Amino acid sequence: MQTYDLIIIGSGPGGYAAALAAGKAGLVTALVESGPLGGTCLNWGCIPTKLFLGATEPIAGIRAQERLRLASGSMTVDLPALQRRKDTMVGASRKAIEQSLTRVNVELIRGRARLASPTSIIVNNADNGEETELGFAKLIIATGSSPSFFPGMEPDHQTILDSTDLLDLAEAPESLAIIGAGAIGLEMGQFWERLGTKITLIEGMDRVAPTEDPEISKVITTALKRAKWKISTGKKVASIQAENNKAVVTLEDGTTFEADKALVAVGRKPNTEGLNLEAAAIATQGRGWITTDDCLLAGENIYAIGDVNGRTLLAHAASDQAEYVIRHILEQTSDPYGPGPIPGCIYGSMEAIRTGFTAEELTTQGKTVTISRAMLSANPISQSHGAPAGLVKVVWSQGKVMGISAVGHGVSHLITLCEVVVKEGWTREKAENIVFAHPTLDEALKEALLAQQA
Amino acid sequence: MQTYDLIIIGSGPGGYAAALAAGKAGLVTALVESGPLGGTCLNWGCIPTKLFLGATEPIAGIRAQERLRLASGSMTVDLPALQRRKDTMVGASRKAIEQSLTRVNVELIRGRARLASPTSIIVNNADNGEETELGFAKLIIATGSSPSFFPGMEPDHQTILDSTDLLDLAEAPESLAIIGAGAIGLEMGQFWERLGTKITLIEGMDRVAPTEDPEISKVITTALKRAKWKISTGKKVASIQAENNKAVVTLEDGTTFEADKALVAVGRKPNTEGLNLEAAAIATQGRGWITTDDCLLAGENIYAIGDVNGRTLLAHAASDQAEYVIRHILEQTSDPYGPGPIPGCIYGSMEAIRTGFTAEELTTQGKTVTISRAMLSANPISQSHGAPAGLVKVVWSQGKVMGISAVGHGVSHLITLCEVVVKEGWTREKAENIVFAHPTLDEALKEALLAQQA
Repeated sequence: MQTYDLIIIGSGPGGYAAALAAGKAGLVTALVESGPLGGTCLNWGCIPTKLFLGATEPIAGIRAQERLRLASGSMTVDLPALQRRKDTMVGASRKAIEQSLTRVNVELIRGRARLASPTSIIVNNADNGEETELGFAKLIIATGSSPSFFPGMEPDHQTILDSTDLLDLAEAPESLAIIGAGAIGLEMGQFWERLGTKITLIEGMDRVAPTEDPEISKVITTALKRAKWKISTGKKVASIQAENNKAVVTLEDGTTFEADKALVAVGRKPNTEGLNLEAAAIATQGRGWITTDDCLLAGENIYAIGDVNGRTLLAHAASDQAEYVIRHILEQTSDPYGPGPIPGCIYGSMEAIRTGFTAEELTTQGKTVTISRAMLSANPISQSHGAPAGLVKVVWSQGKVMGISAVGHGVSHLITLCEVVVKEGWTREKAENIVFAHPTLDEALKEALLAQQA
Repeated sequence: MQTYDLIIIGSGPGGYAAALAAGKAGLVTALVESGPLGGTCLNWGCIPTKLFLGATEPIAGIRAQERLRLASGSMTVDLPALQRRKDTMVGASRKAIEQSLTRVNVELIRGRARLASPTSIIVNNADNGEETELGFAKLIIATGSSPSFFPGMEPDHQTILDSTDLLDLAEAPESLAIIGAGAIGLEMGQFWERLGTKITLIEGMDRVAPTEDPEISKVITTALKRAKWKISTGKKVASIQAENNKAVVTLEDGTTFEADKALVAVGRKPNTEGLNLEAAAIATQGRGWITTDDCLLAGENIYAIGDVNGRTLLAHAASDQAEYVIRHILEQTSDPYGPGPIPGCIYGSMEAIRTGFTAEELTTQGKTVTISRAMLSANPISQSHGAPAGLVKVVWSQGKVMGISAVGHGVSHLITLCEVVVKEGWTREKAENIVFAHPTLDEALKEALLAQQA
């Protein structure tokens, strides 16, 4: 039986980053992947959606200037051409991933892996179905997650779609019902809205972007309503049926409506099916998320990173966990995994970001909290884009920044700066000592950091 | 004679910031202004140009997607409407400035000031020409700068224009000759190019953006040439004449060409004319820049801040000096003024930023320098905007970041993050410990910080 210092299952942002770091460090490493290299993020997630939003941004820009009566115009998108470019770009990135793995001597094994014992896996070869047992000193499970569905709203992939289906539609539907107002629903909806699709958004929680600060949700809601989205919050969907090429959505209150297509984006589930976790006595929790200890260990010599451990379902969280685990394997650290704040963004015409704690989270922890904020309405960069709605909200405890949320045009550009401010727990004095260039959107953050706290 | 704790001459970003801080601190303060509140930045500089660039950004966005054959379209700008909006916005900001000064009890005096003695000024009332002498314990001169011209190229304000004239043109000229490839020429040129004007750019130095790193200049040049700018560097202009409503530009090598309008943006000179600096024995240097010591003192109890002292001709540099001077007056600091790196941006479709030192500057100081860089071509956000040209360049000395330059679509959004990295002298390890959200343009900075240094 061939054995490796390290076997990694899954080549998404977690598995790929782990393989690259392990290869550089000289570990004899194999990376097993049953699908396309790069995982959800590259193939059906962050990257395609950013490409679609970036390509259609001028449409939103034209509309913003038209609202101010400063300009008029239009842009027509060649959707098949955009999809081909997406495929080309994603394909090039897959190739780049493969090359960089080869460069650091990581062996790439195409096939589906399952645990055979606490020290070995079996790979079912993707081409010929042959099964091979491979031994490992260390194993990293980085298999990610997939869209999940409540009973009664499973996609048929024709009319009732998941986020992957929606990327490949041949033409913009006239109307689209989006079930779930998280990042996926909001980003996808904005893309199709720009192409002329009428959007109806249904969220079971009491507001859009329900994991964000309520003030953030409010600004997003206003912007979407202005863009003629029909929004229904606090209402659960009872069922979605495909009838005569239409999606018929029935809410629990009995209301029913029709749309050409429906996107179900209500959550994700861990990819653990068929992994045979029992062979190494690996525990799971909730929907099947792999239980990990403080060092991301799921069992002896077996780590789980990224979405599959259910900690933070974000690509950069997976990569960060990957880098930590390789240092842990190399005994460069024995500290528990403590990444500090993990930044998050929702992209589109109206963007939202968050890093660190919300006021509510800190109050729940029994901390005394103060808040300072700045509106974007006076910021010259926001004004120049005809996008004065939005704010930056800073959460303080004991004189230090504990969290920042922001919403508005282009605020995703503030995220790493906010991450640094929160991670380092800036004081007001620290913020005073930084020269902010003028005019920048960044000055809204400065204004929020220096504003009266209450 | 009425006397004040503090008199400030000029209400631009320096004078205004000083007045606000002084008022808050309870100093009996007067602010003297002969023109519109807000100075060059608000009325004829940073703010109007950002508004013009922001409003026309969709045009550049459409062109970028058209180049990729992903879309087609156009946007027509209502130039008079845009100018009216500029006037409205700028007017509202002037009003906001006035209100915030009133709120902290700063007395606003409209008129032209000149020094009468080392402890008093005379103000010539703007309305009635009356002259009043006012005494001060401390004086801040913050009179800013104005466009300067070489002999033979003075504007006639009809055909041969300065940057202020160019903001108010009633329609886009068919062709525009821009003399000077600094920030003003590049930003203004990009605005008019978007409206259809053919641009010819003449720079006497050997490259566009001559104060930036040569690698940055190269990327800008390529982008402008692709946008059909005619560019001539290393050639000085001998004269510009207005003939039959055309600007006739003659270079020193005898070449001559015609354009509908010419913009002369070759430099700036300090606004010291009529200030009667001799009354307080205040020294100047070069074109008349006021000489200041390490504490920004130009004489006993007389400070000079902002453009007029010639240190850094940027709005935020003036504001930062203002805040220092007020602390110095209040005896909260006796340290010499040491702002650290001052960030700078050039805006437009192809943006450039810089903070800290260039490699050349450090080498001249005898320091050992290494360089690391990342190209934007692989960044998903750059790709999504059809704008893969550009790079982030990091300059290191003794394991610490000493300067960062960047060029490309949207890189102005990196400026404050870069400022923090340079000001704090990040090490490679420090950069490794920050979680960068994915996908962001910020990741290009991460990649540059972690790239091999050479």
